[in-house]
Amino acid sequence: MKLQTASVLLGSAAAASPSMQTRASVVIDYNVAPPNLSTLPNGSLFETWRPRAHVLPPNGQIGDPCLHYTDPSTGLFHVGFLHDGSGISSATTDDLATYKDLNQGNQVIVPGGINDPVAVFDGSVIPSGINGLPTLLYTSVSFLPIHWSIPYTRGSETQSLAVSSDGGSNFTKLDQGPVIPGPPFAYNVTAFRDPYVFQNPTLDSLLHSKNNTWYTVISGGLHGKGPAQFLYRQYDPDFQYWEFLGQWWHEPTNSTWGNGTWAGRWAFNFETGNVFSLDEYGYNPHGQIFSTIGTEGSDQPVVPQLTSIHDMLWVSGNVSRNGSVSFTPNMAGFLDWGFSSYAAAGKVLPSTSLPSTKSGAPDRFISYVWLSGDLFEQAEGFPTNLQNWTGTLLLPRELRVLYIPNVVDNALARESGASWQVVSSDSSAGTVELQTLGISIARETKAALLSGTSFTESDRTLNSSGVVPFKRSPSEKFFVLSAQLSFPASARGSGLKSGFQILSSELESTTVYYQFSNESIIVDRSNTSAAARTTDGIDSSAEAGKLRLFDVLNGGEQAIETLDLTLVVDNSVLEIYANGRFALSTWVRSWYANSTNISFFQNGVGGVAFSNVTVSEGLYDAWPDRQSSGDA
Amino acid sequence: MKLQTASVLLGSAAAASPSMQTRASVVIDYNVAPPNLSTLPNGSLFETWRPRAHVLPPNGQIGDPCLHYTDPSTGLFHVGFLHDGSGISSATTDDLATYKDLNQGNQVIVPGGINDPVAVFDGSVIPSGINGLPTLLYTSVSFLPIHWSIPYTRGSETQSLAVSSDGGSNFTKLDQGPVIPGPPFAYNVTAFRDPYVFQNPTLDSLLHSKNNTWYTVISGGLHGKGPAQFLYRQYDPDFQYWEFLGQWWHEPTNSTWGNGTWAGRWAFNFETGNVFSLDEYGYNPHGQIFSTIGTEGSDQPVVPQLTSIHDMLWVSGNVSRNGSVSFTPNMAGFLDWGFSSYAAAGKVLPSTSLPSTKSGAPDRFISYVWLSGDLFEQAEGFPTNLQNWTGTLLLPRELRVLYIPNVVDNALARESGASWQVVSSDSSAGTVELQTLGISIARETKAALLSGTSFTESDRTLNSSGVVPFKRSPSEKFFVLSAQLSFPASARGSGLKSGFQILSSELESTTVYYQFSNESIIVDRSNTSAAARTTDGIDSSAEAGKLRLFDVLNGGEQAIETLDLTLVVDNSVLEIYANGRFALSTWVRSWYANSTNISFFQNGVGGVAFSNVTVSEGLYDAWPDRQSSGDA
Repeated sequence: MKLQTASVLLGSAAAASPSMQTRASVVIDYNVAPPNLSTLPNGSLFETWRPRAHVLPPNGQIGDPCLHYTDPSTGLFHVGFLHDGSGISSATTDDLATYKDLNQGNQVIVPGGINDPVAVFDGSVIPSGINGLPTLLYTSVSFLPIHWSIPYTRGSETQSLAVSSDGGSNFTKLDQGPVIPGPPFAYNVTAFRDPYVFQNPTLDSLLHSKNNTWYTVISGGLHGKGPAQFLYRQYDPDFQYWEFLGQWWHEPTNSTWGNGTWAGRWAFNFETGNVFSLDEYGYNPHGQIFSTIGTEGSDQPVVPQLTSIHDMLWVSGNVSRNGSVSFTPNMAGFLDWGFSSYAAAGKVLPSTSLPSTKSGAPDRFISYVWLSGDLFEQAEGFPTNLQNWTGTLLLPRELRVLYIPNVVDNALARESGASWQVVSSDSSAGTVELQTLGISIARETKAALLSGTSFTESDRTLNSSGVVPFKRSPSEKFFVLSAQLSFPASARGSGLKSGFQILSSELESTTVYYQFSNESIIVDRSNTSAAARTTDGIDSSAEAGKLRLFDVLNGGEQAIETLDLTLVVDNSVLEIYANGRFALSTWVRSWYANSTNISFFQNGVGGVAFSNVTVSEGLYDAWPDRQSSGDA
Repeated sequence: MKLQTASVLLGSAAAASPSMQTRASVVIDYNVAPPNLSTLPNGSLFETWRPRAHVLPPNGQIGDPCLHYTDPSTGLFHVGFLHDGSGISSATTDDLATYKDLNQGNQVIVPGGINDPVAVFDGSVIPSGINGLPTLLYTSVSFLPIHWSIPYTRGSETQSLAVSSDGGSNFTKLDQGPVIPGPPFAYNVTAFRDPYVFQNPTLDSLLHSKNNTWYTVISGGLHGKGPAQFLYRQYDPDFQYWEFLGQWWHEPTNSTWGNGTWAGRWAFNFETGNVFSLDEYGYNPHGQIFSTIGTEGSDQPVVPQLTSIHDMLWVSGNVSRNGSVSFTPNMAGFLDWGFSSYAAAGKVLPSTSLPSTKSGAPDRFISYVWLSGDLFEQAEGFPTNLQNWTGTLLLPRELRVLYIPNVVDNALARESGASWQVVSSDSSAGTVELQTLGISIARETKAALLSGTSFTESDRTLNSSGVVPFKRSPSEKFFVLSAQLSFPASARGSGLKSGFQILSSELESTTVYYQFSNESIIVDRSNTSAAARTTDGIDSSAEAGKLRLFDVLNGGEQAIETLDLTLVVDNSVLEIYANGRFALSTWVRSWYANSTNISFFQNGVGGVAFSNVTVSEGLYDAWPDRQSSGDA
């Protein structure tokens, strides 16, 4: 093995300085330039970029979140995820901040049975299912490859049941065949997976179902037609049969919502569709019906078996019945704009759950988004084995219906095919009220994130281009930065960019800013990581997400809506939340130990007022029971 | 190991006398009383009762016949059968008499794939299927046990495809899931297996199908409702999808045809249903629609997982469409009355096939019945390992519509719920014409059976009880006995029994006779085998089958129909054919080498005239290419 430069020292962990992190017997010096990281020993980068407050397994690859549920017998919330391509692992939380591994961090269900000889894909849980036990409806896989760009092998994906009688540590497969043994008759599907179980009284009523009937949507699409959600209804008390109710939602191949500005692409295939109903407080069974979906897209020309674009979308829609029941979108957007954000899975978290009992929260819908660690396995050269883990889940998010009042009734508000809709107008005031999906860090999680040492940067107004260092920056790469930015009316349509540089040092920095020219939050990662200059697979491309700052009336004065930013930096994981309705997450793999500085950033002319600029340091350890250094 | 008495000699095969048969180094003397056979070495009984002219594998257990087809590229007829519970073996014939093993007598398809991890059950072949190749639609089994008397494990039986591109030596499973992935939605089936593919222009017309569409019936039934055939239709040129057309035929649980006299029981579950159409010459696509089925029945009370009665039935019916298509029986009977006869599988044998080209036969439907060798695994103590083979197929049978003219129009002819029906009547003559299923040994097979040395016994009339030895009897236990028996009118309803004793010696005999009191052909096996007295599992119970001898007009004279008997004795296999419409097969496991005598038999009063009494000796070797003594 070839070891390069002074940045890697072989020695004992005990000899490491505070700025050195350890793994096995290799000590890496983050004060000097990185070597080509691929030359390091396996496991040596385990701690380098590992987040602290996020959900990920003790080691290995995390995939789609799934298998979430609140155990009715304990009140614990269970969070699951695909793990190492070999089934689903799971953990419990009683506070949405700290987690305990189930089954020692090993999978709670693995492939290799009669129904799933080659893989277990995503599943969802009926909390009180068979014999009142948590019952997993999951995709049992018999043939690979499966991809929307190639012919579908019949029987590849079926839906099967497994039950846990040990508190979720093991899900035992029923000793029988799949309960949904295949797609509807003669459907030439692009995929048929990720069954998502839910209850909905609106559907009960439309379909004359018994109260509290379970439904499932299965995600996929049809070759030559487009992506779709297949809707099924529970048929019997034992969940043995699920009645096909039609493709309740389908879109033309590679079409978009509106012109594609606000919600990306319906693309070629749907994955991981969730269905749930919300009001302004959170989950409400009688609320407005939403879905989150992952869409599989591609640049042209299509390369077989390559999904080059993964969009993590949400959609709200009207449900109606004309013969069969159908879902018609009325607004759609990104649940997370990050290139690597995908495959969200959420679940109703009842007010009676342990986390909610403690926090006093009402019934909520909590969603975990996956952040791929290797560009969906396309990050060639990424030092996967050196890191010994890949990817993470993002922080749990509460979803709700968000109302935006007092918005000036202009073209900005009235745009169609957008991620919001007008719900009422006041012609005398010249305002409208808008509605969209509210996305925010779960309250308990956010409180825990903010529980460390915090300090405030004085309010200031920047009038011209410049980078102004904070008076105090965090000492580590674990912090929350909150701020509000108010823009002058002149900013609209101008070249103004305004925000922050973070994870900054002489040699590295990441810039996060709002750019008026295209109404986007940008993450400039071109200088994020010195390692990207030595090592393949560390992406330096910019991330971007659209956020419209509406014109609003505040006390009779028209102004551009204030940008309300929250940045969570958990080592290499950056999550950006804005205005209760925007999220963008990405990897920021800074190298140097001293890349912890923060600066105000502005490019262009305008009097941007920064206020309530607060930094909370330290975050928290989401896995207090785990051994350190991922030696598990 | 304990060896008893003088009947077993250890020695070399070369030292054996002509009446001694050899297997390995054990020589058995069939001139002395048998020991308890279970004390003999494994394999030592291989030749003892092995038939010569029948289809059975080189060794091991034979199960249901299936997978028959004429290869369009060679004209050879392929005969398949379940073998050792580990898939299907197959052989070819160009003359319906001699056969060649395919794949060295090993299975041409075995379980263990993704679709069939635990078993391969019966399948049938589309001769020009996928890519024009022989394509097997078979039952792929994922879970056991399966039985009509216990709850059905979902997904146990699916229907999958396999294709042969090497002349039938291997059927390669498609690398995909089943083409029929389960029973119709929410059907609580008792079984769902044995897909039988067929073409039928009557169905094409009723269902507005394309010409030459393939159909399949799948046999089984519904718990709490009764046995059924599930009808499916080919949906696409690749045979990927099969459209469910309904339970085209179903019967109430444990009901019977008529009062059960002529066709046994519909019982609890159907198996191995075949569907085909016949005229008086043989197969005719536009002919009358028949089905053969195995029915699984039970004495009361039902013992879980025990089918104590297996009926091998045929049924003719009318096909109509009122919404869905349905099959309504108009007559039904036994294809073979033997207790061990079951699971028949037939196939169209076109006039262009090699056997038919040679014999000049028209299109035919050829059916092979299975004769279980161990009472369907209920023959406790049967020396299975000592014999090293179990069971056989019966001789191939041509099925046709049989017309019986000039039958006196009386209650005997007019009985309803019978195995015949009145098709026309001549009121001036007082006669009717009846129709039933014609069952006869395939013409080539029969010709081969009769090709050996033959001799004729003089006609004689017996007037009273007695056993009258033939002047000449066969020298071996391989022969065909044909005879016609004419009865006086007084026989009707009397206690008269008349027939033959066969396989007879001082110590053994089997009596086959017609018994007027219940219109039955009886096989009295109480004295068939000396081995039955020393060894468990060798059944000595009587076999019986009903045959009505009608009153007929012959040249204006009313008489009881002549009994036209053909007995084929192929060592331990006895097949009895009568009047072109009756078959009963059973095991007759005589022990002594000299149990080869034949006698006339009569019990009761009456002038029974025996005529055309002919014995053909030797039969033929159906497997000329096999090594002797089953050492393969």
